[in-house]
Amino acid sequence: MAGSQPLASQRGDSTTDETLSRFISVRARTEELCEPLDVEDMMVQSMDDVSPTKWHLAHTTWFFETFILERHVRAYEPFDPAYKILFNSYYNAVGDMHPRPRRGLLSRPTAAQVYDYRRHVDSALGEFVGSGNTNDEITDLVTLGCHHEQQHQELILTDIKHVLSCNPLQPAYRADTRGTDTVGYAGPTPWLGFEGGLSWIGAPDEGFAFDNERPRHKVYVEPFELAARPVTNGEFAEFIEDGGYRRANLWLSDGWDAVNRNGWTMPQYWQSRDGEYAAFTLSGVLPLRDSEPVCHISHYEADAFARWAGARLPTEAEWEVACDPGQDADDTADLGIFRPRRAPDIGQGPVAMLGSVWEWTASAYTPYSGYKQAAGALGEYNGKFMSGQVVLRGGSCLTAAGHIRPTYRNFFPPAARWQMSGLRLARNLARG
Amino acid sequence: MAGSQPLASQRGDSTTDETLSRFISVRARTEELCEPLDVEDMMVQSMDDVSPTKWHLAHTTWFFETFILERHVRAYEPFDPAYKILFNSYYNAVGDMHPRPRRGLLSRPTAAQVYDYRRHVDSALGEFVGSGNTNDEITDLVTLGCHHEQQHQELILTDIKHVLSCNPLQPAYRADTRGTDTVGYAGPTPWLGFEGGLSWIGAPDEGFAFDNERPRHKVYVEPFELAARPVTNGEFAEFIEDGGYRRANLWLSDGWDAVNRNGWTMPQYWQSRDGEYAAFTLSGVLPLRDSEPVCHISHYEADAFARWAGARLPTEAEWEVACDPGQDADDTADLGIFRPRRAPDIGQGPVAMLGSVWEWTASAYTPYSGYKQAAGALGEYNGKFMSGQVVLRGGSCLTAAGHIRPTYRNFFPPAARWQMSGLRLARNLARG
Amino acid sequence: MAGSQPLASQRGDSTTDETLSRFISVRARTEELCEPLDVEDMMVQSMDDVSPTKWHLAHTTWFFETFILERHVRAYEPFDPAYKILFNSYYNAVGDMHPRPRRGLLSRPTAAQVYDYRRHVDSALGEFVGSGNTNDEITDLVTLGCHHEQQHQELILTDIKHVLSCNPLQPAYRADTRGTDTVGYAGPTPWLGFEGGLSWIGAPDEGFAFDNERPRHKVYVEPFELAARPVTNGEFAEFIEDGGYRRANLWLSDGWDAVNRNGWTMPQYWQSRDGEYAAFTLSGVLPLRDSEPVCHISHYEADAFARWAGARLPTEAEWEVACDPGQDADDTADLGIFRPRRAPDIGQGPVAMLGSVWEWTASAYTPYSGYKQAAGALGEYNGKFMSGQVVLRGGSCLTAAGHIRPTYRNFFPPAARWQMSGLRLARNLARG
Amino acid sequence: MAGSQPLASQRGDSTTDETLSRFISVRARTEELCEPLDVEDMMVQSMDDVSPTKWHLAHTTWFFETFILERHVRAYEPFDPAYKILFNSYYNAVGDMHPRPRRGLLSRPTAAQVYDYRRHVDSALGEFVGSGNTNDEITDLVTLGCHHEQQHQELILTDIKHVLSCNPLQPAYRADTRGTDTVGYAGPTPWLGFEGGLSWIGAPDEGFAFDNERPRHKVYVEPFELAARPVTNGEFAEFIEDGGYRRANLWLSDGWDAVNRNGWTMPQYWQSRDGEYAAFTLSGVLPLRDSEPVCHISHYEADAFARWAGARLPTEAEWEVACDPGQDADDTADLGIFRPRRAPDIGQGPVAMLGSVWEWTASAYTPYSGYKQAAGALGEYNGKFMSGQVVLRGGSCLTAAGHIRPTYRNFFPPAARWQMSGLRLARNLARG
Repeated sequence: MAGSQPLASQRGDSTTDETLSRFISVRARTEELCEPLDVEDMMVQSMDDVSPTKWHLAHTTWFFETFILERHVRAYEPFDPAYKILFNSYYNAVGDMHPRPRRGLLSRPTAAQVYDYRRHVDSALGEFVGSGNTNDEITDLVTLGCHHEQQHQELILTDIKHVLSCNPLQPAYRADTRGTDTVGYAGPTPWLGFEGGLSWIGAPDEGFAFDNERPRHKVYVEPFELAARPVTNGEFAEFIEDGGYRRANLWLSDGWDAVNRNGWTMPQYWQSRDGEYAAFTLSGVLPLRDSEPVCHISHYEADAFARWAGARLPTEAEWEVACDPGQDADDTADLGIFRPRRAPDIGQGPVAMLGSVWEWTASAYTPYSGYKQAAGALGEYNGKFMSGQVVLRGGSCLTAAGHIRPTYRNFFPPAARWQMSGLRLARNLARG
Repeated sequence: MAGSQPLASQRGDSTTDETLSRFISVRARTEELCEPLDVEDMMVQSMDDVSPTKWHLAHTTWFFETFILERHVRAYEPFDPAYKILFNSYYNAVGDMHPRPRRGLLSRPTAAQVYDYRRHVDSALGEFVGSGNTNDEITDLVTLGCHHEQQHQELILTDIKHVLSCNPLQPAYRADTRGTDTVGYAGPTPWLGFEGGLSWIGAPDEGFAFDNERPRHKVYVEPFELAARPVTNGEFAEFIEDGGYRRANLWLSDGWDAVNRNGWTMPQYWQSRDGEYAAFTLSGVLPLRDSEPVCHISHYEADAFARWAGARLPTEAEWEVACDPGQDADDTADLGIFRPRRAPDIGQGPVAMLGSVWEWTASAYTPYSGYKQAAGALGEYNGKFMSGQVVLRGGSCLTAAGHIRPTYRNFFPPAARWQMSGLRLARNLARG
Repeated sequence: MAGSQPLASQRGDSTTDETLSRFISVRARTEELCEPLDVEDMMVQSMDDVSPTKWHLAHTTWFFETFILERHVRAYEPFDPAYKILFNSYYNAVGDMHPRPRRGLLSRPTAAQVYDYRRHVDSALGEFVGSGNTNDEITDLVTLGCHHEQQHQELILTDIKHVLSCNPLQPAYRADTRGTDTVGYAGPTPWLGFEGGLSWIGAPDEGFAFDNERPRHKVYVEPFELAARPVTNGEFAEFIEDGGYRRANLWLSDGWDAVNRNGWTMPQYWQSRDGEYAAFTLSGVLPLRDSEPVCHISHYEADAFARWAGARLPTEAEWEVACDPGQDADDTADLGIFRPRRAPDIGQGPVAMLGSVWEWTASAYTPYSGYKQAAGALGEYNGKFMSGQVVLRGGSCLTAAGHIRPTYRNFFPPAARWQMSGLRLARNLARG
Repeated sequence: MAGSQPLASQRGDSTTDETLSRFISVRARTEELCEPLDVEDMMVQSMDDVSPTKWHLAHTTWFFETFILERHVRAYEPFDPAYKILFNSYYNAVGDMHPRPRRGLLSRPTAAQVYDYRRHVDSALGEFVGSGNTNDEITDLVTLGCHHEQQHQELILTDIKHVLSCNPLQPAYRADTRGTDTVGYAGPTPWLGFEGGLSWIGAPDEGFAFDNERPRHKVYVEPFELAARPVTNGEFAEFIEDGGYRRANLWLSDGWDAVNRNGWTMPQYWQSRDGEYAAFTLSGVLPLRDSEPVCHISHYEADAFARWAGARLPTEAEWEVACDPGQDADDTADLGIFRPRRAPDIGQGPVAMLGSVWEWTASAYTPYSGYKQAAGALGEYNGKFMSGQVVLRGGSCLTAAGHIRPTYRNFFPPAARWQMSGLRLARNLARG
């Protein structure tokens, strides 16, 4: 195995160990997230955008098998050749794929077989990486595969939330909520001023980042103000009470169509009973907490709220300029507290930027100046989606903390609501 | 329990025993059919018309609970009140129901819980019937519930066949075929003449029959000829080779639309490889046997074939007049041989009428002269579907033999193909 | 012209004259019906089922050109070869056709060109028939073409009614109503008893009839009762007031779906303002007259009304047995009174059977016993629609009186409402 | 009339004259464009995005009536109050509107009535403006109305082109082509380098511009190269021949979906016969000229072509930086030459930027930094469409020359192809 390149670029022990350790812990975390589920829960595809848990378990494994084991380990035997098609998500360059809206039809392979598949690939990859006969490209691919799997960890949670919400029994993913959290700042949001000017954004060349975060490049930003914390449930409820969903002039044209076509009157998963709001969560239906950041809103709702509030959404450049790169992301997801924390006490700069809710920006998802798509199939990872989508920033309470970066560009279609998506307000500063 | 009517119409032991015994054996047979399946297979809804196996298991149970236990057993405790909505198929008079196209979203209740539900209802119903404190109405309802469940036994098989066919792995429901059968008549079909005239059709008042088979009534039938056996795969392949699917003049207008919209070029589940036909079956993909009755065709295809053959479909009256009421239905389903037998040697009358394939007739599904819909919710069983559907006769190799009657009126929309539906030819006799 | 068959079957003068005279008057009547319209009105296709007036003008002309001039007149020069495709409705055997839902896109040929086309064909056909060098087949084809055109005269009116109803200005086809009519019987409907028994229905071999009315054949009819007159607007309003559109148990399953999917709460074109009903008519919005027959209802609504009234729809055999073949059809359409008359005084038999409203029956549109489809393209006229449709009987106030026959089998899908479709009640008589 | 403000801000004669003269000439030009059409052509809506010519004639009139006459002329009598709803396009703040996809149903008002409507408004507006009793706001509104009407002049042409293309007769809007033009540069495209840096884009405060072009603001642009001229038909044909429409890796994900869903194999209106390309034009089907700029391509096709060519689309900032503001727009549209000219001889800078074809950019249509939506209903003009659309620059051969500006931001959804949309290539310059 890997015998073809025995002398080439032997890795230092520490890099190998770190890579292997990350791989093992990410893979284990994924399965940990599935523990509360029955195999039957893991089958369901409740809408085209949602994938069954079992599919996520298999697809993340397919990624390591396809991009590392099949290409770099000469003696590797695929677990099942049919999986190449079944668990390819969207990589045209790799070959055919099972149609996305039909993932819920796959009762076979069973969950047990998929776990066997994971064992098979984990073992082969562990052996390969542990052998030390790898090189920088391999290490980078393993790291990419781990970040890819962390993306799917978040999707496992958002997707199963949607699945369970479609069941009239409204079952909980997990009964306990592991830490409710009521401390922190709950007053009105202070506005923080930023001077702007010619600024650098994007990921530097070294360190892990997705290709869409590069190159680091200059942008000119006008002076602006940013809200110290994300918009809360309580603030969003005021928008609702003020007729926000019924006033066409607050909405983008496509947004107003979406409101009327879908009958939206509140964020996804919200319910109103006897004048009180509650929301379906991973722990079942719970009363809404006013001071928590609002989430499960579309870009259209975020934009309408901002207009109602006399403000606007920040551009992604503004957001990144305002984000202190030294801060740690909230570790809610790692702790298994699957809801956003109430914002902490307000300090000098904006708070709750990393690991609270994904924040919709005003920026369409288009390539950075100088963007170079990766070569081959991996070039399909991000580049081909640069049309019709909107950038979100900051990670959420369901994102592994180690997966969050200030330069991270997440993206979803403007009507998407099943993600942990909220907003933070911005506004112009008079130009002097 | 049932204490409210202790003195009324105590049933004789033999009726009670027979009812109970039928109930127990039908309920057991249903579960036997599920043995080859994983719980994951039992979750899938591959199209709106298909229900998950688990749903069939629960719905048949709901039927006994709703129409017998809840109405006639005073102390009965429902297993779970939410099931009233989840497992109601289409009975508006009973209350709300879970939307049919969303049955595949129900990971909860799990299969294990559904089996518990069955145990709960089986036990309560067994106790109630076994107590002898029942009456004719109860016995009739149990009998109806058993026939209802036998209908769903057939659907469990046709539905899982569709589900598995949608998986690119093409898994078999069961590997072995339990008896292939090559004896019997395979020559050209003799035509058999019938005088017609004023005839009686429909079920008599006594004995079990669905309401749509009644009343027995007079119809006038012109002299006609009927084919001695159903059309075979080999004959249908000739139709295909002769361009049957490409010649508009052979088709009903709606049928021609269906052919073009769906891209039909052969019966459902057929495949053509290197000029040889094969078909997906409950035992996976198998070569086609020319002498077996063709099935998985729509009414449109049956009608087009008949026109191509210079014949027509029989009316349901002709079919019933020609069917010897004394014959036994084929016991293929009971034996677990889930494919139609090659027709036996030709004798005096038509063969393979009962228990081979459902035979499309020329008759729209409308009420018999004098039809009276049952009162209450059970009146929704058959009557409300008397629009837009076509009558099929004879039962199939997937129908329990005890559930087949010459007067049985099955019905499906003309485009349905996932049932075991075939045809038998008829033609006019010169009027003398 | 027609020189190929000069000696064959020279027609008697009287037949020729009669044929020619019918041709001329039918063709003229069609154009008369278009006089109140602007060419812009004549362009619109307001739904797939509706054709623009201009298309009707051209298609009826195409019929004579295709089936008579092109086949039987050697020297005939087509007006424009492209029209073969543009104005073919559904005759696959004749060649390609312009897709039905795109008829409204044809601004060219202009109405003026279509009228030229009519002149061209009228002249050629008049010359051919007037020459006397025809035969029985030709005469029959001309007669068929005239009846075909009379069908389209009715469609011109029902289609333009739909077109104008879609315009928020609610313009009238014609301002005056030419005769409102308030005499006649308005009390409760008497029930009339019929003995039934073995009866003959269908058109005899001689005389004009469509192929679907033949052969005349025997049917057995149980004793039944039929309402003396059609159901009125006033009676239908009672059904509405009694919650008819909200009670699932009154409806066929497909009907209940249609009610909910389309939001039906009253017949098409009805409006309710301040508790008073009005209806959009060819003369604009007018108050509803209680004593007029109800129309613009679907088969589903007719069936639900009958169930609500404790009755049912008659079969087409019952209807035909009850219809006195000697009576004259109402001449409302010929007089330009485009609304059904209030039923006349009740006499011995049922009234208003011919020329009032099309009456939905309980019968699916299937072939008569012994039915033979015409050979060639004309075989597509009726036969290929014998699936999924329901028979209506009696003609309407928009049908030319000379086009109405007691044996006439009209047919529409059960959800169709834009035709002048109403109902008459029937019920069983106890069998003695 | 306008008596309410007789003394306020009397306009100088020259401004009044210029405004009036522009109004008269724009209004006349619109009607001139309709001269080749029959009223029947002016009725058709061939897809949701297309409006009938008649509707354009009325809607542009409605704009002047609604935003000027009704608000500023006290004694103004609306021509017909119903037109407020019928001819409102999308201004929610003004009230209800007739649904866009149903504009083709409006046979009434007739074209003649719409021309009367134009006369009525022209006369009232001419009198109002001519009276001199106006002010800057009124003058600005008239100017805006004229530019609005010029936008619709272009739509009249692109929409009728689509309408006529849907007719199997493929009729020409106008037989003659008024000037074919074969001179000019036809060699390979030179690349022109631009230094970029901190640059100003957007319209200055003075002069006419739409709100979305403002404010003029700074952007930072990296060094880049731009093609001297737009991509030609001949170059696009090479892309096709090289399998451009069959290679997934060239396409954005949404683009690849669009290709497959719509079966795209070449630009809209192109045909391939015997290996030669032709295209449907306003003068009917004509052979394709290799040296003309390609148009009728979607953003997806533009992007795929650029990737195939090893280049990319320019951002709108790059485009604007490269566009010499002093140059005149091509006057093709004013001359009635409704096809793009072959690019002229190459000079110092890029050519054919204004008035050739609309050029797709890489930029999503989002607000400029500091954008302020106009107040009231006119704020709906542009701002609410800033989602899901892509910016095009430069105007086309169908755009009135006086309506074209270098700062003009046109926008369409990325799949739109019925506009005169083409592309110009860009690429990065190594950062040094």
